[in-house]
Amino acid sequence: MAKYSIDLDQAFSALADPTRRAIVSRLCEGPKTVSELSEPFQLALPSLLKHVQVLEQSGLVTSEKAGRVRTCKIEPHALHATEAWIHQHIAVWEQRLDRLEAHIARMKRKR
Amino acid sequence: MAKYSIDLDQAFSALADPTRRAIVSRLCEGPKTVSELSEPFQLALPSLLKHVQVLEQSGLVTSEKAGRVRTCKIEPHALHATEAWIHQHIAVWEQRLDRLEAHIARMKRKR
Repeated sequence: MAKYSIDLDQAFSALADPTRRAIVSRLCEGPKTVSELSEPFQLALPSLLKHVQVLEQSGLVTSEKAGRVRTCKIEPHALHATEAWIHQHIAVWEQRLDRLEAHIARMKRKR
Repeated sequence: MAKYSIDLDQAFSALADPTRRAIVSRLCEGPKTVSELSEPFQLALPSLLKHVQVLEQSGLVTSEKAGRVRTCKIEPHALHATEAWIHQHIAVWEQRLDRLEAHIARMKRKR
């Protein structure tokens, strides 16, 4: 599997906006043209394009233009990278809880 | 289990900064006082406190003051909420891949 270098600052920042999260949601269902993407949003096309641009800069989305039609798709490895960062830290926290539990159990046996 | 309402905008925005992610990392190892937290960072205390404040507003961290000592701890349910959002969307994307794969297999059998 190829190694992807994801800028977590940009990826988390891109996800910190409800319109951009909604775009990510829709692209997880499959690639969409910009005009398909714009349908459910009460947004002017330039505003939508700005959000798409932020998502592209973050690595979460890529797009290709064929003629006058730009099609966007999700880049799952970037989503995986953000999930991996959070998951890894939850795991550290849970391991600490396990150690605390084991320590308490040992203390109880010693009583 | 209690239901927590997490503001994903604030949570992802809080994680979009390397110092704040480093604070989250350290707090996953256990609660820390503000002065313990400040040790590895080349940061003035007011700057560190600002980052802690952003993390508190996002719900990722809470702190308590006892006398002159403020102790911070991670709020794992908030980390879980951000992970859950990403995980759910990766799952949608993977289900789509599975459906595409099944469709291609059916097409091949028909040939």
